[in-house]
Amino acid sequence: MRIMIIVCVFLIPIFAVEMIIPIPDSIHYEKEKALLGKKLYLDARLSKDGKVACATCHNLATYGVDNKAISLGVNGIVDDPFNTPTSFNAVFNLSQFWDGRANSLKEQAKGPITNPKEMAFSEEEAIAVVQSDEAYMEEFEKLYKGEVSLETIADAIAEFEKTLLTPNSPFDRYLKGDQNAISESAKRGYESFKANGCISCHHGIGIGGNMYQKVGIFTPYNTPQLGRYDVTKKEEDKYFFKVPSLRNIDKTAPYFHDGSVINLETTIQLMALYQLGTILETDEINDLVAFLQSLTGEYKDALHQ
Amino acid sequence: MRIMIIVCVFLIPIFAVEMIIPIPDSIHYEKEKALLGKKLYLDARLSKDGKVACATCHNLATYGVDNKAISLGVNGIVDDPFNTPTSFNAVFNLSQFWDGRANSLKEQAKGPITNPKEMAFSEEEAIAVVQSDEAYMEEFEKLYKGEVSLETIADAIAEFEKTLLTPNSPFDRYLKGDQNAISESAKRGYESFKANGCISCHHGIGIGGNMYQKVGIFTPYNTPQLGRYDVTKKEEDKYFFKVPSLRNIDKTAPYFHDGSVINLETTIQLMALYQLGTILETDEINDLVAFLQSLTGEYKDALHQ
Repeated sequence: MRIMIIVCVFLIPIFAVEMIIPIPDSIHYEKEKALLGKKLYLDARLSKDGKVACATCHNLATYGVDNKAISLGVNGIVDDPFNTPTSFNAVFNLSQFWDGRANSLKEQAKGPITNPKEMAFSEEEAIAVVQSDEAYMEEFEKLYKGEVSLETIADAIAEFEKTLLTPNSPFDRYLKGDQNAISESAKRGYESFKANGCISCHHGIGIGGNMYQKVGIFTPYNTPQLGRYDVTKKEEDKYFFKVPSLRNIDKTAPYFHDGSVINLETTIQLMALYQLGTILETDEINDLVAFLQSLTGEYKDALHQ
Repeated sequence: MRIMIIVCVFLIPIFAVEMIIPIPDSIHYEKEKALLGKKLYLDARLSKDGKVACATCHNLATYGVDNKAISLGVNGIVDDPFNTPTSFNAVFNLSQFWDGRANSLKEQAKGPITNPKEMAFSEEEAIAVVQSDEAYMEEFEKLYKGEVSLETIADAIAEFEKTLLTPNSPFDRYLKGDQNAISESAKRGYESFKANGCISCHHGIGIGGNMYQKVGIFTPYNTPQLGRYDVTKKEEDKYFFKVPSLRNIDKTAPYFHDGSVINLETTIQLMALYQLGTILETDEINDLVAFLQSLTGEYKDALHQ
């Protein structure tokens, strides 16, 4: 009995459960497909006006977003009124899009190419672009037995997106034991993040991205978008959206599914009001901002040649 | 006595006091100076890189603003972190700038020309540009006895700005008696605007612009800007800003002195929270939006030639 207690006491610090998990340095992916996918991700020829690539809205230089409230598709058309989610760390999401209508990165990648308000291509047009390019065709021969289709194009892009990870944020280093990796303010912010209940939705590797939640639990969030309901048509899914990842959140303004707020301070205040029915003091908001800023990781192009 | 009562009963509807006053179709201004001022307002040569005019941030085609959270000055420098106030109807403001540091349109006009983060010119450089232009010099000879100075340049610009009025909004037509000028939702919104106390700060011709108020009365508004305090250095003026005009507010997003919110719904919710200590229902917010949308007036270039 005494031994058991001693063992348990020693185990507690080891197994103290943190609901946030550091991003791994890399995950498994097929390098050749990823290299092809990268080219496709950056290729604006895959759009009706030849100007919009995946990377236009999911810019690799700006944490997988374009920092616009609402992105512009071909010919400057305003996209559906959703803020562009980041492609970074998207592999960890339970599903893709705000309403989770795509079950995988591959399913997601098909969406914008053929969305008339985004890249506005047909599958045939996308195939023709690839087939007209000798270098592409060599790779499709080798990797997909020559099958060029929206399926194989999206498959390669999805493979590339598995490389879009941002490990090594100050907070992840803190989680791994480096007590000096984040400021005292960020530490207080993390405690506040847990104490106020933010963490009940924002947790896991993505600190979000692994569940749906209603926006406006305590105070209605005024939005015409119905979220998850559009996919399931279930009344109880109205105003449910995929909880967004907070990874690199300091770099991916503006915020909310409608991109309506540009700064973290106001966003935090509104989340407290809408989701938790509470109002935060300025000091606490500042600490939460410091915590969120510590979630900015490092993106290194694993495929750089 | 009876006669007095009867007289009073008849007077009530006539003198029923509305705290909002319609914008006049025009106010007095000197046309020739205004014409000169218009040219100067549009002249980007009055800036260090030759690319920034008054009209760059105070665009005449977009209700006197640029719809940016924070405007960009010469060479893309980020301006002081204040959202650009509109130049439209600014003549009705008690003072200019968010902190009211300019007492007149003329004082205001001097600011951006010589602000190193805006047009970044010296008075000498501005004078040199004007003097190098024969057409300008003719007009300065005629209107200012040949005196070219920051004073006279700003005087002409201010004269032009007196023409930037937006009369005849649906709400003004409603105030003048046209019951069908605004929707039922907008009428409910106006009642809500009065009942909730929004009108205690937003009133007069500008529906704002005629007093200072603290931002964050009930809930602190997280902002590094100190507002009126920067002008007066009085402790009690900290976080006091000039109440912005709500004229054309539907067209002048984003909102707040920091430009942090892009939509009226969220802005209204936050104002209720910060200024009134209340939380509004979605229906009420929608009515308030309808009311605010009815404040969009008509701008006609009185000087169009």
